[in-house]
Amino acid sequence: MQPKIRLHVDLPLAAEAEVGLAREQAHYLFSVMRLAAGDRVALFNGRDGEWAAEVVSAGKRAGVLACRERLRQQTVLPDLWLLFAPLKKARTDFVAEKACEMGCARLWPVFTQHTNAERVRPDRLRAHAVEAAEQCGLLAVPEVAEPCPLAAALAGWDPARRLLFCDERGGGVPAFAAVQAAGPGPWAVLVGPEGGFSEAEAERLRALPFAHAASLGPRILRADTAAVAALALLQAAAGDWR
Amino acid sequence: MQPKIRLHVDLPLAAEAEVGLAREQAHYLFSVMRLAAGDRVALFNGRDGEWAAEVVSAGKRAGVLACRERLRQQTVLPDLWLLFAPLKKARTDFVAEKACEMGCARLWPVFTQHTNAERVRPDRLRAHAVEAAEQCGLLAVPEVAEPCPLAAALAGWDPARRLLFCDERGGGVPAFAAVQAAGPGPWAVLVGPEGGFSEAEAERLRALPFAHAASLGPRILRADTAAVAALALLQAAAGDWR
Repeated sequence: MQPKIRLHVDLPLAAEAEVGLAREQAHYLFSVMRLAAGDRVALFNGRDGEWAAEVVSAGKRAGVLACRERLRQQTVLPDLWLLFAPLKKARTDFVAEKACEMGCARLWPVFTQHTNAERVRPDRLRAHAVEAAEQCGLLAVPEVAEPCPLAAALAGWDPARRLLFCDERGGGVPAFAAVQAAGPGPWAVLVGPEGGFSEAEAERLRALPFAHAASLGPRILRADTAAVAALALLQAAAGDWR
Repeated sequence: MQPKIRLHVDLPLAAEAEVGLAREQAHYLFSVMRLAAGDRVALFNGRDGEWAAEVVSAGKRAGVLACRERLRQQTVLPDLWLLFAPLKKARTDFVAEKACEMGCARLWPVFTQHTNAERVRPDRLRAHAVEAAEQCGLLAVPEVAEPCPLAAALAGWDPARRLLFCDERGGGVPAFAAVQAAGPGPWAVLVGPEGGFSEAEAERLRALPFAHAASLGPRILRADTAAVAALALLQAAAGDWR
């Protein structure tokens, strides 16, 4: 039976492998969830599939689990990236959670000219992505790339990766049609900040051969909504929702 | 020039019409945003388009605006409904906000067998929808229907309205293809609670001639994510995002 609690760990998982828990994980399992020796938890690490593991020893600050049986083989996340301009804290957390659920392999915070947030904490983004992966049954957590200016991200861009650029100015083709016309991936989605891209940024993006300007309907969407909507259309047109 | 602040009001809007403000609106405009006589605000009521209105009198608890020029003609929201099982408070608020941005005309909380939330406040949903409409430049706020059991909503269903039922069991056709195959609307999206639909509910839904079971990819989505993703695919396949 599938254990109710799932944990992401960074250690190797294999038959009878023992897994030492980090302090917060031991606290969560034994103090919050009241698990005891013999109880089962599902573990995944993004490489070795999902394992049912049994509590071998349980303490307040430490604990050991032992892998008993493999529940699922490892699958690979779609090669889909999300680049987004950091928003207010709660909305940035939300984007990390949603990108994970939508199957992104990489989350990349990029600073644009109208980005209000001056800083973003990659560890916090990663914590939200881990939690979403644990709760939504994923077998891997997306990588969180080092935040950088948009211009730097574009300067080193691999032209084989297409970029769906959500253009709030309304100049773009409907997103689904844009992705279908451009063909299969790998793809990245780029969502701008609340204030939109600057004129110079939009011009630069439109001139890039790998970028495809796309519209997300006649209403202005908040940036976090645009991220989920664009990822849904991309997965449906060229990803693993077909 | 488009005023930065937009307010939804329930009063008629027309050239030179005067609009008395509710107490909270007066507080927001004059105490929080520090507007004064002569400043301009955009008003909409869902019927008469968008108007630039000028502050005629400003008090702490009351105020009067006068419509000066029409900025936009009224448009009609797509005839798209969202039925959803109420979630925890913050996620329910989120669904209301997102449904509004995605262009829903009607939000309908329905209680299913696995719905955890026992109550939902339609006035709170409406307040979130109004705020989203004000901030995202919409000209109308979706109607919030009276919460009821799912069975009651289905019992009185107009069979001319198609229902996209997001089936987490994975039995459905990919959502975009399901909508395309069924054809144009009117449509409604139905998203279940965190625990999914019960077996009896899923069976009942699958037997309804107007219901179309749809899948949202190989990963389990949270209910709030599923709502945004399904609405995006519906707008792209049969709505005003084409």
